[in-house]
Amino acid sequence: MSYNKAPSITGETINPKVKAFNYEPCGEIVRHAERLQQQMDENPDSLPFTEIIHCNLGNPQVLGQRPITFFREVLSLCDNPDLLNKDEARALFSPCAIRRARRIINSIPGKGSGGYTSSRGIKSLRQAVANGISARDGYLAKSDDIFLTDGASAAVNMMMQLLIRSHEDGILCPLPEYPLYSASIILHGGTMVPYNLTEDRGWGLEIFEVKRCLEEARSAGLTVRAMVVINPGNPTGQVLSITNQEEIVEFCRKEGLVILADEVYQDNIYVENKKFHSFKKVARSLGYDEMDISLVSFHSVSMGFCGESGRRGGYMEITGFGDDVKVQLYKVASVTICPNIAGQILISLVMDPPKIGDESFETFDAEKEKIHSSFLKRAETLAKAFSSLEGVSCNKIEGALYFFPRLHLPKLAIKTAESEGVSPDVFYTHRLLDATGIAVVPGSGFHQASGTIHIRCTILPDEDKIAAMIPRLKSFHESFMNEFRGSEPYMNDVRR
Amino acid sequence: MSYNKAPSITGETINPKVKAFNYEPCGEIVRHAERLQQQMDENPDSLPFTEIIHCNLGNPQVLGQRPITFFREVLSLCDNPDLLNKDEARALFSPCAIRRARRIINSIPGKGSGGYTSSRGIKSLRQAVANGISARDGYLAKSDDIFLTDGASAAVNMMMQLLIRSHEDGILCPLPEYPLYSASIILHGGTMVPYNLTEDRGWGLEIFEVKRCLEEARSAGLTVRAMVVINPGNPTGQVLSITNQEEIVEFCRKEGLVILADEVYQDNIYVENKKFHSFKKVARSLGYDEMDISLVSFHSVSMGFCGESGRRGGYMEITGFGDDVKVQLYKVASVTICPNIAGQILISLVMDPPKIGDESFETFDAEKEKIHSSFLKRAETLAKAFSSLEGVSCNKIEGALYFFPRLHLPKLAIKTAESEGVSPDVFYTHRLLDATGIAVVPGSGFHQASGTIHIRCTILPDEDKIAAMIPRLKSFHESFMNEFRGSEPYMNDVRR
Repeated sequence: MSYNKAPSITGETINPKVKAFNYEPCGEIVRHAERLQQQMDENPDSLPFTEIIHCNLGNPQVLGQRPITFFREVLSLCDNPDLLNKDEARALFSPCAIRRARRIINSIPGKGSGGYTSSRGIKSLRQAVANGISARDGYLAKSDDIFLTDGASAAVNMMMQLLIRSHEDGILCPLPEYPLYSASIILHGGTMVPYNLTEDRGWGLEIFEVKRCLEEARSAGLTVRAMVVINPGNPTGQVLSITNQEEIVEFCRKEGLVILADEVYQDNIYVENKKFHSFKKVARSLGYDEMDISLVSFHSVSMGFCGESGRRGGYMEITGFGDDVKVQLYKVASVTICPNIAGQILISLVMDPPKIGDESFETFDAEKEKIHSSFLKRAETLAKAFSSLEGVSCNKIEGALYFFPRLHLPKLAIKTAESEGVSPDVFYTHRLLDATGIAVVPGSGFHQASGTIHIRCTILPDEDKIAAMIPRLKSFHESFMNEFRGSEPYMNDVRR
Repeated sequence: MSYNKAPSITGETINPKVKAFNYEPCGEIVRHAERLQQQMDENPDSLPFTEIIHCNLGNPQVLGQRPITFFREVLSLCDNPDLLNKDEARALFSPCAIRRARRIINSIPGKGSGGYTSSRGIKSLRQAVANGISARDGYLAKSDDIFLTDGASAAVNMMMQLLIRSHEDGILCPLPEYPLYSASIILHGGTMVPYNLTEDRGWGLEIFEVKRCLEEARSAGLTVRAMVVINPGNPTGQVLSITNQEEIVEFCRKEGLVILADEVYQDNIYVENKKFHSFKKVARSLGYDEMDISLVSFHSVSMGFCGESGRRGGYMEITGFGDDVKVQLYKVASVTICPNIAGQILISLVMDPPKIGDESFETFDAEKEKIHSSFLKRAETLAKAFSSLEGVSCNKIEGALYFFPRLHLPKLAIKTAESEGVSPDVFYTHRLLDATGIAVVPGSGFHQASGTIHIRCTILPDEDKIAAMIPRLKSFHESFMNEFRGSEPYMNDVRR
């Protein structure tokens, strides 16, 4: 007997929806940085810098953010509840963490942390999350509206799976985009309906633009089901004003759109004049209840003062959905059985942290404050540094972990990039990385407006690294501009 | 202005693929058991029993299986690596666990356990898994073929997402089934192609039956892409013979089918004459390599001696797939960014446990052996007890955590069930639960052969509970049979 020696599955014969999306905005720059790192390890003097500074990754703890001590103590105790009964543990864990871990373990069916849980998460931890939301918003949240999830991405995917029936279903998403959304929409067979944020107005969201896009999509035959809003914004770093949020609520209510509110950066706000307001709070304060508008709020343990990205904890709060829909969402959750328990515990801690009077409160508060004030300093320093560069404009970094400055590059630089077969943003970021070790992401990975050049930069490297990085950035940028300035003025816009 | 007060999303307007599947085989029996538990809590003397015995759930630790000490020590230390540098920790953790945790933490980029990892998992932990597979099989496994996942269910869903293009793509699955497979296939828009296991031959898998189903599916216009094999079997508890596995490999190779091998019960085997052989080992021992056959092996931390279901750790090993396919699978993994770190660590420990000479080895080995020998006893006791019941036939429990005995009930029982609007298996299981507190699952939740009556029972309750349960079961069954025997003989088969 002789059979075909070809494998039965090839790149040609897989699900075309998988092939259709691209979800690696940082991919090439990461690989290039890895190659340079390897070169540096093997031959330390071969490069004009001694370390790679990663401004490309939204990965707080890999870039040095310290975990919150109380959180790790509780996790550690819940992982090994035998410790709770040992006197020696008192030398290693705060009494507050011991109490909390004991309370958590006792509230889990089976009184351990190793069993399957409900597909929507452990009831007591959902209640802790609901209590945290109630305290934050001043409006009651119910544990039955909470689904605990393996991070916000899992929750977003679940909602897309629930909402999208075919490519005739559209989901409104902001541009520049966080590419999870386009990836998830395409993977689940829907159509992304992009709306532009307005760079000139601090990356503001303008309702007439959203309305224009909605109407265009409807004329093309799409049924638009939901509007994604990321607040604070990724990759743009803007924070919506409350008036703007009210407009969005009114708009979605009128148009019958579900609001998918990505609120994972709610603890990352750096401006005095803006605060975080959840979309649910805004809707309720306008007098709208469950019967008026369908809302999903996504949050996770990955960002903010917690920064525990790899632990995969998160929740979604769903309001304004009937029980018939919740039953179906539960089914979607059940195909991966349950979210991981450590992540479930962690999100309950984020939403119900130590309070004044708890032994751990002072340490917790100091750690949180240190992280926050450092972000604030870094955001200011970086925005100032980028704004001072020739041909670079940069909005204020109001929140999240990113900013998205615009580059106006000389004509010759753009031509050179073209002749090398890459886009100008890719050209610039690779030159920057090669010359300085500073890794940022080309704006094309985030679907920047056609004809513009941006980079996405994080505020995550620590203050010392940022201080070391700025002179290198300035000096690189000056040489780059001088090299390509030629006799022609630089272009403000590149329409190709 | 007045808007429609209807929520924008209703049960009518969600993704029909979500509505189409059913994934709650134990649902109604669990809810009924919960109601009884509540009644018992409120009014302890109102029921003819004093506790619910859960033989319905495959959830080891919730039913009393103790976690492996070494695993929990390492997890606990990795969650709180500050402990690694504290002298006091030596009183609480074995030196072996301290060394392992230090090695793991040092091998993670960023040297912490809170950052995003690669979407396929941390390289050093993938290598630990690959080493474990190599040692188990005697054939080399490569870390690049390993994807760490949030449990096996997540991995199965990823493969279905990759393989299924439309409802014209079929996946062969065993009946009685573990309903994750039908749920995942329907959710991803494909068609399940069931093949029957043969109850009379110990739930054996007969290739001519699989071939018949494949041909029928092809005649109906389906492209059959893969064959799911669960070994040891859920819900049937059978272990495939090596000859049978060889036939399956030959068959799938000849027919160009990917083997999706659910091998999560590989450490749960209770018969002397059968051992676990991975499908990869069987294929390689037949002389087939990557060019000959495409294979996926799923494993997790949920079952076996580990039993850490709620931690969501697992892996899939994929061989015989081109790099073009792996790149696409990586993209599927990337939409949920990365598997949770605690789960990644745990699966690395399952595949690379303490070795002879390690300080923790004796304890580890004793704990593992205790769990295994207790399963063995429980499997024997339960199969014997069920086989002794009038009208019940029960295959030997060779592996996994389940068995699937067949009931031959009196005609009158079946008529009574009909008159109550339920199927006979549902009727029997509810009567059993109400009378004895013993919870088992009706076979219809596992797609039993039409016209037959089965129940699925786990071997998870501890030995004392099983000892207490058997007389209650026997006495209930005797009364049940007497009640319905009437003047007519009981039916062997119910064809309705």
